[in-house]
Amino acid sequence: MNPKITRFLADRQPATPCLVLDVDQVEHRYRAITDVLPLTRVYYAVKANPAAPILNRLVSLGSSFDAASWEEIRLCLDAGASPDHISFGNTVKKASAIEAAYAAGVRMFVFDSGEELEKIARHAPGSKVYCRLIVANEGAEWPLSRKFGTSVSHARDLMLRARDMGLDPYGLSFHVGSQQTSTEAYEAAIAQVAMLFTDLSAAGLDLRMVNMGGGFPIRYREDVPEIDQFADTIHRALRQHFGNNLPETIVEPGRFIVAEAGVVSTEVVLVSKRGNDKGPRWVYLDIGRFGGLAETEGESIRYALRTGHDGDETGPVAIAGPTCDGADIMYEKAPYALPLSLRAGDRIEVLGTGAYVTTYCSTRFNGFAPLEEHYL
Amino acid sequence: MNPKITRFLADRQPATPCLVLDVDQVEHRYRAITDVLPLTRVYYAVKANPAAPILNRLVSLGSSFDAASWEEIRLCLDAGASPDHISFGNTVKKASAIEAAYAAGVRMFVFDSGEELEKIARHAPGSKVYCRLIVANEGAEWPLSRKFGTSVSHARDLMLRARDMGLDPYGLSFHVGSQQTSTEAYEAAIAQVAMLFTDLSAAGLDLRMVNMGGGFPIRYREDVPEIDQFADTIHRALRQHFGNNLPETIVEPGRFIVAEAGVVSTEVVLVSKRGNDKGPRWVYLDIGRFGGLAETEGESIRYALRTGHDGDETGPVAIAGPTCDGADIMYEKAPYALPLSLRAGDRIEVLGTGAYVTTYCSTRFNGFAPLEEHYL
Repeated sequence: MNPKITRFLADRQPATPCLVLDVDQVEHRYRAITDVLPLTRVYYAVKANPAAPILNRLVSLGSSFDAASWEEIRLCLDAGASPDHISFGNTVKKASAIEAAYAAGVRMFVFDSGEELEKIARHAPGSKVYCRLIVANEGAEWPLSRKFGTSVSHARDLMLRARDMGLDPYGLSFHVGSQQTSTEAYEAAIAQVAMLFTDLSAAGLDLRMVNMGGGFPIRYREDVPEIDQFADTIHRALRQHFGNNLPETIVEPGRFIVAEAGVVSTEVVLVSKRGNDKGPRWVYLDIGRFGGLAETEGESIRYALRTGHDGDETGPVAIAGPTCDGADIMYEKAPYALPLSLRAGDRIEVLGTGAYVTTYCSTRFNGFAPLEEHYL
Repeated sequence: MNPKITRFLADRQPATPCLVLDVDQVEHRYRAITDVLPLTRVYYAVKANPAAPILNRLVSLGSSFDAASWEEIRLCLDAGASPDHISFGNTVKKASAIEAAYAAGVRMFVFDSGEELEKIARHAPGSKVYCRLIVANEGAEWPLSRKFGTSVSHARDLMLRARDMGLDPYGLSFHVGSQQTSTEAYEAAIAQVAMLFTDLSAAGLDLRMVNMGGGFPIRYREDVPEIDQFADTIHRALRQHFGNNLPETIVEPGRFIVAEAGVVSTEVVLVSKRGNDKGPRWVYLDIGRFGGLAETEGESIRYALRTGHDGDETGPVAIAGPTCDGADIMYEKAPYALPLSLRAGDRIEVLGTGAYVTTYCSTRFNGFAPLEEHYL
């Protein structure tokens, strides 16, 4: 575990549940991705964790930002980001949000439907627009679904319409799904995008940008490919499919940049074994699916856990949150084992929780306040 | 739709998304259940909606309260509830929460494990305790799972231990699952409880109370049995299994009391049809699974919708929330149809949303603020 966080937890014994996050680690991860993708602009996916200390640090490093809402754009501006370093990256935007972003100087918008394109043309005239394609999400632990993106043929029509509407048809985007563990997913998507570049060029429209989205995985309980393997695949695919005519490229990492920087510290509320029940012990923590660990839905993201009893003999457990909701179970099927010596009142550290935790947290489900946040 | 809410929405045009709730309707529903279960004490399940106007009204009506946490207990006390009208109804409690509740005068605690019983004996000596049994949840649209409750034989051992620990072994509880549409579920559970009463009586321990939990359903899109049908079943089962020696009884309705009193007003952000896509139109609202409509997970709770275009020709739709999260889809499989004339900017009212909405809402996922609440 990160020594700075370990020291903070030992010295301060903060009330649980809380997130402790090392902002230097965020910088380290930002540099790791810019090192291996030097020609690609990094738009940090603000939704992963919009805390001011993170945005401030990334602004100082020259990062750009992928915002999901006008409220996230405002957070970036408050942190000192220039509006031309912000992409309004949600395909579903209120007209009022587009207007506000445009008034603040934002000139880059995504879309995946004719209806959205019309809204952008009306409320953000002349802006750069890019169309999101639907691509395969196989290999992703938190896949995206049919909610976003459109087909190549529809995207082609829409980019031509964008030009006719006086917008700047800037490029195309895709998203291979979050916590994507297959490098090939990027390769296939780049090939698809390149074909549409060629096709549109023949129609007299030269696109300039490919937004490759995020999805780069981090290590939870299992090894994942390193970021340089993704970079190698991306470089190879770009060269193969675009030749010497390389487009501008963008990535939108969120989880990759902040997840490993954070640790959730939680308290064991109850360890119980019910009578003759043949099943595992149940371990109830003071944080669960509704306190921030929402990505445990369907047991998708399987966090690594550290206890003060590590090294003792372990036994299988089911792990649940503290609410009266039967759905507030994190792991019942996933093979988790915890020390037999674990007791109520013990602390457990949940690793890799810097992303997609604080903002998912419910306002006060069952009366529990949102988790505290500590940025070091 | 409730005329008071309709008038408020028309006159005030509140910013969306918001919940508008008619507190008189809460009173009406409280009276509906006390009318048909006159000998049963009603402990309102605070987690369904802990807003002060609701708690205040229920205190004035003489309701008792089922609290899931020390924070909920404090809300009840703030609303003027007497501590002896509060049950600490979560089987998973921090020692500090038990202590705080005891210090505030709360003397009624649930448990389903030996470990929890020990905590209660230590931090709330002499209190009334009741043990939660695990019962079948068939027929429930939001079932509970193996997270709570224990077997009859284990409960028997624990109640005897409770007496030995100086606690008051008060009774037994069960929960048939939320939005339970089968009256028989209560009948089967009462039979189970009665057998354990008899068995423990033979062992020299006379229990006095049966807590039948909540779960009473409300009408979303489909008819459900009326509350008097549940009451009839409960009365018949109690007479059949307890004869003339009727125990004290408790119910813990939450959804039943507040759900129908509330309406979420939301705005359509986008209606899109993607190219040659054979699928339905997609309708994106400014509230979704992470903005409060969490019970749409797995499309479990299927809310009824009202639009200003009702009566126009309709067509099939998928319905999603406003975030960049692929999991933020409410209905893709459930057969929903909405007017073909529906456009971005239109309002949609989501009925029956007075329960399990405001507190599930995320603090600010994707930057979106929690929904506003208006109590009339």
